Amino acid sequence: MQATTALLTDHYELTMLQAALADSAGQRRAVFEVFARQLPDGRRYGVTAGTGRLLEAIEAFRFDDAALTHLASAGVVDEPTLNWLADYRFSGDVWGYAEGEPYFPHSPILLVESTFAEAVLLETLTLSILNFDSAVAAAASRMTVAAAGRPCIEMGSRRTHEYAAVAAARAAYIAGFGSTSNLLAGQYYGVPTRGTSAHAFTLLHDTERDAFTAQVHSLGKGTTLLVDTYDVAEAVALGVEIAGTDLGAVRLDSGDLLAQAYDVRAQLDELGATDTKIVVTSDLDEFAIAALAAAPVDGYGVGTSLVTGSGSPTAGLVYKLVAREGQDGELVAVEKKSKDKPGVGGRKHAARRYDRHGLADAETISVSGPVSGDHFRQLLIPLIREGEVVGHKSLDDVRRHHEQRRAELPRTALQMSRGLPAIPTRYEEQP
Amino acid sequence: MQATTALLTDHYELTMLQAALADSAGQRRAVFEVFARQLPDGRRYGVTAGTGRLLEAIEAFRFDDAALTHLASAGVVDEPTLNWLADYRFSGDVWGYAEGEPYFPHSPILLVESTFAEAVLLETLTLSILNFDSAVAAAASRMTVAAAGRPCIEMGSRRTHEYAAVAAARAAYIAGFGSTSNLLAGQYYGVPTRGTSAHAFTLLHDTERDAFTAQVHSLGKGTTLLVDTYDVAEAVALGVEIAGTDLGAVRLDSGDLLAQAYDVRAQLDELGATDTKIVVTSDLDEFAIAALAAAPVDGYGVGTSLVTGSGSPTAGLVYKLVAREGQDGELVAVEKKSKDKPGVGGRKHAARRYDRHGLADAETISVSGPVSGDHFRQLLIPLIREGEVVGHKSLDDVRRHHEQRRAELPRTALQMSRGLPAIPTRYEEQP
Repeated sequence: MQATTALLTDHYELTMLQAALADSAGQRRAVFEVFARQLPDGRRYGVTAGTGRLLEAIEAFRFDDAALTHLASAGVVDEPTLNWLADYRFSGDVWGYAEGEPYFPHSPILLVESTFAEAVLLETLTLSILNFDSAVAAAASRMTVAAAGRPCIEMGSRRTHEYAAVAAARAAYIAGFGSTSNLLAGQYYGVPTRGTSAHAFTLLHDTERDAFTAQVHSLGKGTTLLVDTYDVAEAVALGVEIAGTDLGAVRLDSGDLLAQAYDVRAQLDELGATDTKIVVTSDLDEFAIAALAAAPVDGYGVGTSLVTGSGSPTAGLVYKLVAREGQDGELVAVEKKSKDKPGVGGRKHAARRYDRHGLADAETISVSGPVSGDHFRQLLIPLIREGEVVGHKSLDDVRRHHEQRRAELPRTALQMSRGLPAIPTRYEEQP
Repeated sequence: MQATTALLTDHYELTMLQAALADSAGQRRAVFEVFARQLPDGRRYGVTAGTGRLLEAIEAFRFDDAALTHLASAGVVDEPTLNWLADYRFSGDVWGYAEGEPYFPHSPILLVESTFAEAVLLETLTLSILNFDSAVAAAASRMTVAAAGRPCIEMGSRRTHEYAAVAAARAAYIAGFGSTSNLLAGQYYGVPTRGTSAHAFTLLHDTERDAFTAQVHSLGKGTTLLVDTYDVAEAVALGVEIAGTDLGAVRLDSGDLLAQAYDVRAQLDELGATDTKIVVTSDLDEFAIAALAAAPVDGYGVGTSLVTGSGSPTAGLVYKLVAREGQDGELVAVEKKSKDKPGVGGRKHAARRYDRHGLADAETISVSGPVSGDHFRQLLIPLIREGEVVGHKSLDDVRRHHEQRRAELPRTALQMSRGLPAIPTRYEEQP
């Protein structure tokens, strides 16, 4: 992979650019908005994620020599456009929802304001990052709700593209997962990484006893032993025999997790290993986690369904031109009239309204100006000002923000069942 | 993103490595196998994809100073393991199905043979690449079947992780898509890229006439005009007025594509623009494409459903230890006894059996030795020999291989409906 992000872009952004530069409309001031027409699959809320990655990616969005050479040789755009691209550096403003912020249908989670030429180029990259990361974060958030405080471990790297895996680990952490299996997410984002062993380690050895002995010897008594390669009860007994009652945890990765969790807990307690924890993995999703709420389980490892957004692998966010300069130099609201994909024109303001208990009760969007007052919290914060990134936040701050803002949603937001968004989206105009 | 791929790896691969190095089992010869227990979602065949990317990724799998420093500071593994990793370079053998080859449940699409220590490290990276690319290729292959020769354009970059998008464009091309919107896939893999304009370009201008005039002026009469921003019939008339009957194509991106395609075709023909093509986009999948088979449509642009595997965003491939050296130095078949995820032990051979009409009729797998004979085609080809990549192929060769091998499947393989795999998987042993 290469350092510049500029070619992570659809061909048509560049042909539009060429045509717009040629007729000077490219220099018109423009506002693009990122929003979702609906939440996927009956979800109650979405989760803004990827913003921090996007800011880094925009900083790296330069057309280097290799990129320009490719565009020239492939005949993507003409010479004047290539010259313009060689100097490209986004110089406009970006506003957005704080990363980790819940969102709802038509929440304007990102506004990109610049010339059309500068802003149109960022469409594909912006959507790729926000759509993937937000899809994973939304699924992860439901899982951590279902886990009700028990630790969740992200372990889906093998079930998605190798670099998507790193972003997924980051997005899951934002939404409350405590750790990941992905080492690059550890190196690059500082997400805590965890892992001990797989069935292959047991099968490598002549006996399960040899395998457990080797693992405890090398990784310590606090390790997690995988106990379902052969017979679970025999493996649990063997684990406690080898590691003693200080054994850290056992992991169940197949079979009826609910029944087995009770059996294994009873066996561990009987052996005196009352502090040994039980971790379950095996194709968990938010529903399976919820079904284990009463069981004696101490942690959940989640893979496939997390990194694939639990049935909704993309957030469905779009990047639409909502306003641009008119002939008189003033911004004009614009919107498509297509039958099934209507837009709402105009540069938006957004605030969340709270009831007297401090719970969110509406997402308010306005075109005329900010909706303000005691019961409103403004949602759009500056991310880039005149080309300079001003919105960097630490991942732990983002994680706390999500936890705090999710806690302010009405309780219907936390239901696992399909339904309407937890709060309605209202268009309000200042008098 | 960084040049080394070594940390695109689950934490537990390294802790297993540490424990295995400490007790010398790590030096046992081992065979890992990649296979799918089942095809997703009633599919009739899978498509092996990602192999070429994987070979590049394995060549780049080295623990550089930054990676080692991270592993040390995060306490992932101990000093002897770090020293071993510093010299790591895969020195074993890899066999696999040719990229583009159809596969079926339990087809051994990749075999990794080396010491346990060397081979276990490649699990996560191998699965990430093959699972994502194969999921996209499988969906893409069904779409090109449904398109029945009409060109398909991959345009899903915005609906998946920014680098997954590049891999998706490559996988779609393997499975018969003719082009992609993704510029990096053009630069990096040579996939032809295409694109013209979006609704934003029309909305940027004061009138649709201004927009179309600017586009035709800059991109030529052969361009594709997007005609559904306001009124389709007016836009089609305007397009032909401006570009003349040489107008390349019009694109429909909303509404009832079936009805509109007929209306627009009739209108274009009446205007004399009989060569102007109609391209449709708007949330297409293989079923929507099939439903448009009789309509006057000249090309399909596919986004979301392609890059998310049309309901199956991961191929469900696993990487399992199937054989390892025993105390006597001979390979011993191993398999997990877990209740719901049984494995089949042993180093596999695989061949596809053909009937007298030249159609595939069984996937034959054997542990004892190759199943040979006139009606069998061997499926495992050498990809890496003693650490050296020997299996590089051009993307066009891979694409042709897929087309040729798909054409040899029984016709049930090409049905859109859910069902059983097109051919059964049989375990056969040589006498």
